[in-house]
Amino acid sequence: MIEHGHFTGKANAAAGKVWQFGVIGYGYWGPNVTRNLILIKETAVKTICDQNPETLQRAAEFYPAVTLTENAEDIYQDPEIDVVAVITPVSTHYALAKRALESGKHVFVEKPFTFNVKQAEELITLAEEKGLTIMVDHTFLFTGAVRHIKKEIDAGNIGEVYYYDSTRVNLGLFQQDVNVIWDLAPHDFSILDFLVGRKPIRLSALGLDHFGRGIENIAYVTVYFEENLIAHFNFNWLSPVKVRNTLIGGSKKMVVWDDMLRDEKIKIYDKGVDVESREGIYRSLIDYRLGDMYSPRINPAEALKQELIYLVECLQQGTTPINDGHAGLRIVRMLEAADSSLKRGGKVIEL
Amino acid sequence: MIEHGHFTGKANAAAGKVWQFGVIGYGYWGPNVTRNLILIKETAVKTICDQNPETLQRAAEFYPAVTLTENAEDIYQDPEIDVVAVITPVSTHYALAKRALESGKHVFVEKPFTFNVKQAEELITLAEEKGLTIMVDHTFLFTGAVRHIKKEIDAGNIGEVYYYDSTRVNLGLFQQDVNVIWDLAPHDFSILDFLVGRKPIRLSALGLDHFGRGIENIAYVTVYFEENLIAHFNFNWLSPVKVRNTLIGGSKKMVVWDDMLRDEKIKIYDKGVDVESREGIYRSLIDYRLGDMYSPRINPAEALKQELIYLVECLQQGTTPINDGHAGLRIVRMLEAADSSLKRGGKVIEL
Amino acid sequence: MIEHGHFTGKANAAAGKVWQFGVIGYGYWGPNVTRNLILIKETAVKTICDQNPETLQRAAEFYPAVTLTENAEDIYQDPEIDVVAVITPVSTHYALAKRALESGKHVFVEKPFTFNVKQAEELITLAEEKGLTIMVDHTFLFTGAVRHIKKEIDAGNIGEVYYYDSTRVNLGLFQQDVNVIWDLAPHDFSILDFLVGRKPIRLSALGLDHFGRGIENIAYVTVYFEENLIAHFNFNWLSPVKVRNTLIGGSKKMVVWDDMLRDEKIKIYDKGVDVESREGIYRSLIDYRLGDMYSPRINPAEALKQELIYLVECLQQGTTPINDGHAGLRIVRMLEAADSSLKRGGKVIEL
Amino acid sequence: MIEHGHFTGKANAAAGKVWQFGVIGYGYWGPNVTRNLILIKETAVKTICDQNPETLQRAAEFYPAVTLTENAEDIYQDPEIDVVAVITPVSTHYALAKRALESGKHVFVEKPFTFNVKQAEELITLAEEKGLTIMVDHTFLFTGAVRHIKKEIDAGNIGEVYYYDSTRVNLGLFQQDVNVIWDLAPHDFSILDFLVGRKPIRLSALGLDHFGRGIENIAYVTVYFEENLIAHFNFNWLSPVKVRNTLIGGSKKMVVWDDMLRDEKIKIYDKGVDVESREGIYRSLIDYRLGDMYSPRINPAEALKQELIYLVECLQQGTTPINDGHAGLRIVRMLEAADSSLKRGGKVIEL
Repeated sequence: MIEHGHFTGKANAAAGKVWQFGVIGYGYWGPNVTRNLILIKETAVKTICDQNPETLQRAAEFYPAVTLTENAEDIYQDPEIDVVAVITPVSTHYALAKRALESGKHVFVEKPFTFNVKQAEELITLAEEKGLTIMVDHTFLFTGAVRHIKKEIDAGNIGEVYYYDSTRVNLGLFQQDVNVIWDLAPHDFSILDFLVGRKPIRLSALGLDHFGRGIENIAYVTVYFEENLIAHFNFNWLSPVKVRNTLIGGSKKMVVWDDMLRDEKIKIYDKGVDVESREGIYRSLIDYRLGDMYSPRINPAEALKQELIYLVECLQQGTTPINDGHAGLRIVRMLEAADSSLKRGGKVIEL
Repeated sequence: MIEHGHFTGKANAAAGKVWQFGVIGYGYWGPNVTRNLILIKETAVKTICDQNPETLQRAAEFYPAVTLTENAEDIYQDPEIDVVAVITPVSTHYALAKRALESGKHVFVEKPFTFNVKQAEELITLAEEKGLTIMVDHTFLFTGAVRHIKKEIDAGNIGEVYYYDSTRVNLGLFQQDVNVIWDLAPHDFSILDFLVGRKPIRLSALGLDHFGRGIENIAYVTVYFEENLIAHFNFNWLSPVKVRNTLIGGSKKMVVWDDMLRDEKIKIYDKGVDVESREGIYRSLIDYRLGDMYSPRINPAEALKQELIYLVECLQQGTTPINDGHAGLRIVRMLEAADSSLKRGGKVIEL
Repeated sequence: MIEHGHFTGKANAAAGKVWQFGVIGYGYWGPNVTRNLILIKETAVKTICDQNPETLQRAAEFYPAVTLTENAEDIYQDPEIDVVAVITPVSTHYALAKRALESGKHVFVEKPFTFNVKQAEELITLAEEKGLTIMVDHTFLFTGAVRHIKKEIDAGNIGEVYYYDSTRVNLGLFQQDVNVIWDLAPHDFSILDFLVGRKPIRLSALGLDHFGRGIENIAYVTVYFEENLIAHFNFNWLSPVKVRNTLIGGSKKMVVWDDMLRDEKIKIYDKGVDVESREGIYRSLIDYRLGDMYSPRINPAEALKQELIYLVECLQQGTTPINDGHAGLRIVRMLEAADSSLKRGGKVIEL
Repeated sequence: MIEHGHFTGKANAAAGKVWQFGVIGYGYWGPNVTRNLILIKETAVKTICDQNPETLQRAAEFYPAVTLTENAEDIYQDPEIDVVAVITPVSTHYALAKRALESGKHVFVEKPFTFNVKQAEELITLAEEKGLTIMVDHTFLFTGAVRHIKKEIDAGNIGEVYYYDSTRVNLGLFQQDVNVIWDLAPHDFSILDFLVGRKPIRLSALGLDHFGRGIENIAYVTVYFEENLIAHFNFNWLSPVKVRNTLIGGSKKMVVWDDMLRDEKIKIYDKGVDVESREGIYRSLIDYRLGDMYSPRINPAEALKQELIYLVECLQQGTTPINDGHAGLRIVRMLEAADSSLKRGGKVIEL
C-alpha cells in the first residue's frame, strides 16, 4: 500500500496486465486523463464517449486508434474494459458511476464525487458489494506541494496545527449548474482532509450572488475541526487574477503555499521570536518576518499522472485508495453543509 | 477643505500660528506622532505625558526641550496647549479625551476611537457643544496607496464595487486587553469606510481563541453593505509572516493591494476576457490572468505626517476632518457588532 | 508575408497540402518539434532518424505510425519528404543540412545555424541555387514576450534604444563540445538581432574555465552596435537558479523582461522624473522606481508551434522567413567573434 | 578588535568618553551621519560645516544646539573636536582629510576614499605618522546582509567561491564630476574585498557615454582575482528601476542577494543535482531550480549606526578598523584601473 508522503512510482510491471479504460466525457479535463492513461505503460484507453460529436472529432484526430462513441452503454457492455473514468459534470456522476459499477467496472470519477451525501453512500455500498474500487479524482493530493506539506506535518515540524486558511479565486461565473462552493471547494476540502485527517464539527458559509441568478459567485466558509483547528476558505469567481494561496499555522512553524508561483511554492517559516516579550512585540510590529525561511524543492511531476499510476497500484494489489469513495463522501458532506449554510444566510451548521 | 484624493500639502503658513500639542502616551506610536509634530512647521510639542518614568526618560534624551510629566493634568490645565494627542490603549481613550475636551482642547486620538458606541457618541456631542475638533488617527487614509485607490474608484475606473477582501495577519498575541478584531480591524474598517462610503447592513464574525484566555487570536469577519457590496476580513495573530493584502473587485477592473511590497503595492487588472464564452472559460482555467495590469507609482510620503498637516489645515480653516469623531464612531459601531457576533459563535448581526 | 510583430496564425489551409517532414535527432528538443509537427494540420512527420536505438524506441512508443531509422539517407532519399528538420548538435548541422539541400529538401535547423561563418555562407548559397528554404530555429522570436517588445519598440514607445542587457544563467557544464557562449548566446543574439535590426560594430568577451577542460563556463560579452547602442550578455553555467532577465533601456521607457516569471514577464517603466533637478536626484537615490509601470498580458501560445506554422506559411507562399539562413549567419558571425575574443583574454574584435 | 562576521554592539560605555565630531558636508548623506552620531551615546556633533547657507539652515532647524559654519577651519582648529567626518564629493576628500589629520583629528571619510591611489597612500602615511585613525565609510560592510554572507563564506558553506556577479543600476546621470564607475563601483568593490579578501590580478571595463559629455553612464567591469575567482559588475545610470542584485557562486552553494527586497534579501541555494548525469541534464534544462533554498532572517539594524558604533570601539580600544585607509586604497586602486580600462576601450589592465 502506498505510504503517505511518497509514491513508489512503479506499478507492478511484472504483473504485465494492461488495464483498459473507457473514458466518459472529453471536455476540459478528459483529454488530460486520456493522455496520461495512454502514456502510462500499465493503462490503455479503449473507448472514449462524449455526447458532443465535435468533441469526439477532436479525440479522433489525436488518437485514431481509440474507439469513439456517443453512447456510454458501448463502454459498460464491453467486457474488455476494466475501469470507467467519469469526467463529466457533477450532476451526472451518480448515474454514470452507478451504471459502471453495476456493469462490474472499477470507477475513476471526477471530483466532487456526487451531488449529495445520499448518492455517495449508495455508490460506496454498491462498490463494496461488488468488490470494486472507486477512486475520486482529488488530483491535488498527488502534487509535490501537498505531499511535501503532508510530510512536514506528519514529521511534527509544524507542531500542533492551529489554522488552515485558503484563498482560491479566479474568473468564473460561467459554471451554469453549480455555485462557487461546488466549483472550487472540493480542492481545498480534500487537501485539508488529507493533510490533517480530523473530523469537522460545524461550519458557516457566507456569500453573495451579484447577478441574481441564484448561483453564488463569492463564498467565505469557516469550518471548526476537532482539537481546536479552525479552517477558512475564500472562494471567489470575480477575480481577473488567479490566487491560490494557503497558510497553515502551527505551534512550531508556518507554511505558506502559493501555488501560482513557478518556484518557491512552499515556504516554511520559523516563528523566531517570543512575542510575549517587549522586544518581541516591537519587532513583530515592524519587521516583515521574524524567523528564518526554508523553501524545499518540490517534485514537479504531473499530479494526474502520479494519481493514475497509484490507481494502477491499488487495482493490482487490491488495496483501498486514500482517495476512495469514503474520502469522496467526506468532501461531499462538507460541500452539502456549506451550501446549506450559505443558502440560510450564514447559519452555523453542526456536522 | 481638503478634497478626497489629494492633499494640498501646504498648511496656511501665512496664518503663522504654531499649534501647541500635549502628547499623552509615549509607547510604540507616540514617538512617531511626536517626531512629526516637531518636524512640521506649524506644530510643536510642549509636553509629553507617560505613566512610565523609563519611557519618559527616552523622550528626554531625544527632546531635551520638551516638558515631561507623569500627570496628564499638567497638559489639560496648561492654557498654552491647543491640542491633546491621546496615544494610549483604547480602554483609556474615553476618559482622557473627555477630560481634554472639557479643558477646551482639540483632540487627536489613536484608533479605535473608543471602546464602545456610547463613549464615542458622548465625545462627539461634547466636542460639538464646545466647538472643538476631534480627529481619529485613521492613518491609512493618508497613505499614497489608499489615496490612489480612492482616486480610481471615484473616477469610475473600477466600475461598480462588488467586493472588498482583506487579509491582515502577523504575530500578535501580546495584546493583553483586546482581541484580534479590536487590534487589527480598525485599519480595514476605516479604509473601507473611506473608499466606498456605504452603509453596512449586517455582519458575521467567526474566530477562535487557541489559548483559553478569552481573547480571540483569529477572526473572519464578513460584512454586507448596501448596494450588493460584500466585504470580508481575515485577521490572525498567529502568523510569523506579515500579510497585508487587499483585493477590491469591480465590474470593470480589480485592484490588488499588497502593502508589504516595497514597490508595486497597487496593481490594477483588466478583466480582459468574456468568461461567458467557451474560449474565455478555457483561458480562465489555464491562465494566471486574462488582461493587462497597471501599477501606478505611489506617493511614498509618510502617512502620519500627511495626516498631521491635514489636521493643521482643519484647525486653521475650521473645517471638519474626514476622520472626525463621526468616522471614528462608524468604525467603533462595526467593531462592537463584530465582537458581539464573534462572542455568539458567528451569529449574524443586523446593523 | 508575415509582418513583424504579429502572426496571422492561419496557414493557408485552402492549399490543402500536407508538408512531410523527416526529423533528424530525437534527443531533448526533437520530441518537441515532432509533437508540434504532428499537431499542426498542414504538417506531418514521415520519418525520424536517430543514431541511438533507445532514443528511437521512445519515439516508437509515442508515434507507432512514424518510420524510424538510424540512417539519415532514408530521409534524404525519400521523395515524399519535403522538409528535413535537423535537431542535432551544432557540429553536425553543416553536413546534415548540406546533404538535405543537395537532396532537394527544405531545411529547418536547430540554432546555432552552423559552427562557423564559412559553413553558413555555403549553405545559404546552396539553398539559393536550389530555390530551397532554410529556417533556423530561433524559437524565442516567436514568443509572446519578444513579439510584444518588438511591437513596443517599433511603435516608438521605448524611444531611442540605449542598451540591451541580458542575464542568462543556469546549471550547465554538461555540454561536451561547446562552451557557454555557443550554448546560451544564440538565444540572446537572435532576439536582439530581431528586435533592433542594427549592425554590430565590435565586441569583447571575458570569461573563465573553472575546471581546466578548455570549455569556458562563464562569459561576459559586450557588443557595440551602430547608433550608440551597447549590448551586454551575462552567460553562466554555474548557477543552481535559472535567471532569464533582460533590461532594455530607451530614451522614453524601459523594458524589464523576466522570462522565469509565470506572469508579468514584461514590465514597462516610465522614467517619471527629471533627474537633472535636485528633487529628482534625491528621489532617485531613495525610491525603488520613479514612474508608473505597465505589464501587458502576453500571448501564452507555444512559440515552437507558432514558428512551425510560420514555416508552413513561408513554404506555401514562397516567402523568405525572418529567421532564414542570413539571420542564422548573422548570429554565427557574432558567436565566432565572441569566442575568438574570449580565447584571447577579452581582446576587442572589430566586426 | 572586532571579529569578522559580528559586532559586539557595545562600545565601552565604562570609558565614559564622548567623542566630539565635526561634520563637513551636509548634503544628501551628511544628515544621516549626523543623526546617528547624535543618537549614539558615545558620540556627539559639535560643529557642522557646509558651503551652502541654505543647507546649513536645514541643519539649524533640526539641531539648534550644534555650531554651524561655512569655514572648515573652525572645525580643524577646535581642540575639543576629536574626529572629522568628511561627507563631501570625492574630489575634495584628499585636501579636507589631510588638513584634518594635520590638525590631529581622526578622520571618517565618505567612500570612495580619494580620487587616486597617490592621494590615498599619502593620507595613510600621514595618519600612521600621527597615530590617527582613518575609517572609510564602506557602509555596506555593516549591513545584516553582507555580514550574513560573510559568515556563510567563512564557515565554508558556499565552498570555493567561483564568481561574484553584481548588477547595480538606477537613474543617475546627475553626477557632474564622476562617471558611473566612480559613483556606483565603490559599494561593490568594497563588499567583494571584505567578503573574499583576495587580490585582484587584472581587469577590463567597457561602457558608453550616450550623451557626449565625457562621463560614461554605463560600464561593465570584469575583474580576475587570484585562485580562479571571476568578478563582474554591471553599472548603469539609465534605469528607471533600481536593481541591486548579486550572485555569488561556489562549489557547494550559491547566494542570491537582492537588496531591493524588503524581505528575503538573501537566498541560499543548494545545487541539488549532479548535472553530469543525463537525468541531471534534462532536469536542469526544464526546472527553475534544482535544490532547496534557505532564506535566513537578516538583522535589520541600520548599517550606518553599526558602523559608527564600531568606529567608537576602534577609537576607544586603539584598534585598526577593517575599513581603514588601506581598505580604502584597495578600492581606489581598482576604481583607477577600471576607469583607465574604460577610457581605453576595454583594454585589459594588469593590477
